[in-house]
Amino acid sequence: MNVNGRHWRTLWPCAGATAFEVVDQRVLPHRWETVRIETVEAAAQAIRDMTVRGAPLIGVTAAYGLALQARADAADAALQAAATRLKEARPTAVNLAWAVDGALAALLAAPVASRAALAWQHAAALADDDVATNEAIGRHGLGLLDALARRKPAGQVLNVLTHCNAGWLATVDWGTALSPLYQAHAAGLAVHVWVDETRPRNQGASLTAWELQAAGVPCTLVADNAGGHLMQHGLVDAVIVGCDRVTRQGDVCNKIGTYLKALAAWDNQVPFYVAMPVSTFDGSLRDGLREIPIEHRSAREVTHLAGLSAQGELLEVQLVPEGTQAANPAFDVTPARLVTALITERGVLQASEEALQPLLTPAPG
Amino acid sequence: MNVNGRHWRTLWPCAGATAFEVVDQRVLPHRWETVRIETVEAAAQAIRDMTVRGAPLIGVTAAYGLALQARADAADAALQAAATRLKEARPTAVNLAWAVDGALAALLAAPVASRAALAWQHAAALADDDVATNEAIGRHGLGLLDALARRKPAGQVLNVLTHCNAGWLATVDWGTALSPLYQAHAAGLAVHVWVDETRPRNQGASLTAWELQAAGVPCTLVADNAGGHLMQHGLVDAVIVGCDRVTRQGDVCNKIGTYLKALAAWDNQVPFYVAMPVSTFDGSLRDGLREIPIEHRSAREVTHLAGLSAQGELLEVQLVPEGTQAANPAFDVTPARLVTALITERGVLQASEEALQPLLTPAPG
Repeated sequence: MNVNGRHWRTLWPCAGATAFEVVDQRVLPHRWETVRIETVEAAAQAIRDMTVRGAPLIGVTAAYGLALQARADAADAALQAAATRLKEARPTAVNLAWAVDGALAALLAAPVASRAALAWQHAAALADDDVATNEAIGRHGLGLLDALARRKPAGQVLNVLTHCNAGWLATVDWGTALSPLYQAHAAGLAVHVWVDETRPRNQGASLTAWELQAAGVPCTLVADNAGGHLMQHGLVDAVIVGCDRVTRQGDVCNKIGTYLKALAAWDNQVPFYVAMPVSTFDGSLRDGLREIPIEHRSAREVTHLAGLSAQGELLEVQLVPEGTQAANPAFDVTPARLVTALITERGVLQASEEALQPLLTPAPG
Repeated sequence: MNVNGRHWRTLWPCAGATAFEVVDQRVLPHRWETVRIETVEAAAQAIRDMTVRGAPLIGVTAAYGLALQARADAADAALQAAATRLKEARPTAVNLAWAVDGALAALLAAPVASRAALAWQHAAALADDDVATNEAIGRHGLGLLDALARRKPAGQVLNVLTHCNAGWLATVDWGTALSPLYQAHAAGLAVHVWVDETRPRNQGASLTAWELQAAGVPCTLVADNAGGHLMQHGLVDAVIVGCDRVTRQGDVCNKIGTYLKALAAWDNQVPFYVAMPVSTFDGSLRDGLREIPIEHRSAREVTHLAGLSAQGELLEVQLVPEGTQAANPAFDVTPARLVTALITERGVLQASEEALQPLLTPAPG
């Protein structure tokens, strides 16, 4: 992803392997800042306070966090405690547990003296894998978009709606849901993206609209309430969203509000695609509604909002009187029956137990 | 409605019939202010800039606006021009046209010299009718809520979700969608209201949550994205919303996002009720999706938001970088098939052409 004429990843190791840096997503789109992370505690905090967010990126962040721990103290108990702390930072995204458990198992199998170097290599490989995965998701998704575009009258723009941010900023590079759109744009396919602002944290308004604009992809921001109306009027050709966890039967856990868009897509015969790195698949669960734990975040995310004042100062305003009760479930589950297909790095799969069966075994190679 | 220990309507005539006053809904919930309106232009402006809002209340505001015009110049041409200006202030709500056309017809049929006094009486009667209508809607709605409560285990609170503000502040008094809830609370039925914040203008957060709290009705504010999740988990026993226009076949035009909640209610077998004063019924239209004009409001409502700073100052913040495109359709249409019933002052009606047939002829008396 290019920002201000330079290629960036969202996370990179610092020379000397004593720290890594990340793009600070809390101050986007108003400020472009990076944060240096030097301890596993700081890594967990960056995940918790959403300096980094997006299921793939928090997995890689946690792997680097564990690498920092391995440099400080690589004994079994220290690594295990750090792994627990990292996994507890966000309970919903399965990538986080997957990345941490994978890294921890590799480290515990190695001699203590070699663990620090190994942990660093492991995290770097995970970051590179994420980039390759997302590039492949984009390629497969582009095939779907291309087929939809061919069904439209010549010269008409393909309109795609997305919710939250499953873009470059949610991953190390490319994004998941936005990867097909970046590749379509690069391939000369005329696309336009409806961006749900995605209350309460406004990741659509703050991150998705910002990164699409940085990449030159035409987009229009809308309130989360608008998507159904747009679909009723033929203004949406497809929905593509990311996901935080997908169950064995294809139920999709993603940002709160995704389910409402899936219902509207279903009601208006609009294809509803979910970009899913295989690392997000959780074969241990079947019924997403009953089995996926849903993170409830602070009421303050609903009652307060940050933005730029008329003087250009970044500040927070309170939307409601003191004492107003608010609830803030952060994710919801879209039943598999509403999902047209899952776009994975291994190809496009139906959201069904049968189609997802191959994912229960590790990929060849 | 009681605020600070005193009974208020949202609008009242000033002594001497030279002006009327309204509660300024633009500064709620942070400030309690009233605005004095002395000209028809100011009345149109108050409707346009949403100093007053809510289909019933803007109808009454327009009637008082026409009364101000009748005092200034009651000639046919002047009244007709004023009526046009008032109707153009908000294009979607049918009450506005209904109130203005009704008042205009009554005035044009009277001698010019008597029009000013007549217009004032007409507006006052319209306000009183609104109060009586909403009280009746509340009574009929209470019957529905009571039936739902009886089906729950004893001692369990009845959870009702509402979208936007169809409360006291949207009417002269009582509200439409909230009237059954106020009456339930008064009757000792344990109710709790999930309040959609209702982006982009946040009428739920700013107005509904505020007025429910002022009345002592337990409520919890949620992002618009949360309602589907709440319904999936059995946390919503009914949805009640207001409406801006209902067609002959029962299609409901209401605040943007209503359709998404209706889809979720349908998918989870939650009753979806629409509180509809008969004045909101538009028998001239059948297919709401094709025939109801949808107001598109300023992109600024999406890109900027007002709230209180940490210093207690009411100010607006910009959510996205300069130049971000945004679209802002203000209403959507919920097809009749998703509506469990319409709660009117004449009783509870099915959302079907057959059931609504009696509304095509004026009420007896």
